[in-house]
Amino acid sequence: MARWEPNARERLERAALTLFIENGYDATTVAGIADRAGLTKSTFFRHFADKREVLFFGQDMLAQLFSDAIRNAPPSATTADCLAAALESAAVAFTPERHDLAPQRRAVIAANSELQERELLKRARFAAAMADALRARGAGDLAARLAAEVGVLAFSTAYARWAEPENTRPFTEIAHAALDDLQACAATLEK
Amino acid sequence: MARWEPNARERLERAALTLFIENGYDATTVAGIADRAGLTKSTFFRHFADKREVLFFGQDMLAQLFSDAIRNAPPSATTADCLAAALESAAVAFTPERHDLAPQRRAVIAANSELQERELLKRARFAAAMADALRARGAGDLAARLAAEVGVLAFSTAYARWAEPENTRPFTEIAHAALDDLQACAATLEK
Repeated sequence: MARWEPNARERLERAALTLFIENGYDATTVAGIADRAGLTKSTFFRHFADKREVLFFGQDMLAQLFSDAIRNAPPSATTADCLAAALESAAVAFTPERHDLAPQRRAVIAANSELQERELLKRARFAAAMADALRARGAGDLAARLAAEVGVLAFSTAYARWAEPENTRPFTEIAHAALDDLQACAATLEK
Repeated sequence: MARWEPNARERLERAALTLFIENGYDATTVAGIADRAGLTKSTFFRHFADKREVLFFGQDMLAQLFSDAIRNAPPSATTADCLAAALESAAVAFTPERHDLAPQRRAVIAANSELQERELLKRARFAAAMADALRARGAGDLAARLAAEVGVLAFSTAYARWAEPENTRPFTEIAHAALDDLQACAATLEK
C-alpha cells in the first residue's frame, strides 16, 4: 500500500509551478514534477490527472460553490445579493497561505495560449453554473445570463486584484468592491 | 492553372453542413466534402484551411466589424450606442440568403463538445475586440469589459433568435431588441 506523504499535494503543486516557470509548461513532465517534489509519479497521479490539472483543479469546486451559494440564498435575496453570496463562497480557495502561488499560476497561464483558452473556458463554465442557479430561483433566461457574466467578471477582477504580489487584503473584501464597481458600470448602460 | 468554380465556396459549405449532420462532424473528411460538392480537395483548400473553418470562417470578419463600428462611432455616442453600431455592422453576415444554413450550423455545433468550446472561445474573442475598441474610445477597463460582455450576449441572443427556422425578421431588428432587453436587465442589477 502506498505510503501517505504529508502535504504531498501542495508539494507537487509548488514543484509544478516552479518548473512551469523555469522550463515552460510544454517542456515540463509529470516525472520531472514528481522528482522536484521528492515524490513518485504514482503519488502525482493520486492527486492530479495530468499536469494541466495542477493549474485547474479548483474549477469544479468553485463552480459548485457558486451554484450552491446562489441556490441557497434566502428567497428575499436580490440578484446582486446572490452574486455577492457566490463570490463570498469562493473565499475558501483564496487564503493568505495560498497567496504566493497565485502570481506564479497567472504567469504560467499568460505565457501559453492553450492555457489561456482553458482559462476562458473555465470562466464560461462558471457563468453557466451561475446562470443555471439563477434560473432555478426564477430569473428569466436573459437576466440570468447577464447577471452570471457580471458575476464572472467580478470574480476574475477580484482574483486578479487579490493575486497582485503586494496585495494583503482578503479576497472577500476585494470581491465585494469589484461587484460594487461593476454595478456602477451597469448603471451607465441603461437607456 | 486551377479552373474558377462558380459558387465553389457556398457549394463546399452546404456540402460540409449536410455531411456533418448526416455522418457527424468527426467522421466527415475534406475529401468527402469536396466529393459531395462535385469539386476537388485542392479547391476546398483554396477556400478553407480545414473542415472546422467551414463553421468558423466568419469569426475574424465579425471581430473586425465590431471593432471598426465601435471605433468609428461619433464622439457623442454612448456606450450603448456603440454596442448598437457593432451589432448593426454584423448584419452583412446574416442575410436572408444565408438563413437556411444557420439552423444546420447550430445543430452541428450543439452535437460536438469540441465545437462548443470553439464557439465559446469565438465569443471571448468578440468580447476582447469590443472591449479593446471601447477602451480606445476612453472607457475605463471594467466598464469596457462589462459593456463588451453585454454586446456579446446581445449578439449571441440575436443570432439564436435570427437562426430559428421559422424566423423571417431581419437580423438588425432582432439585434436592437436583444440589446434593449439586456439594457432593461442591467437596470435590475443596480444597488
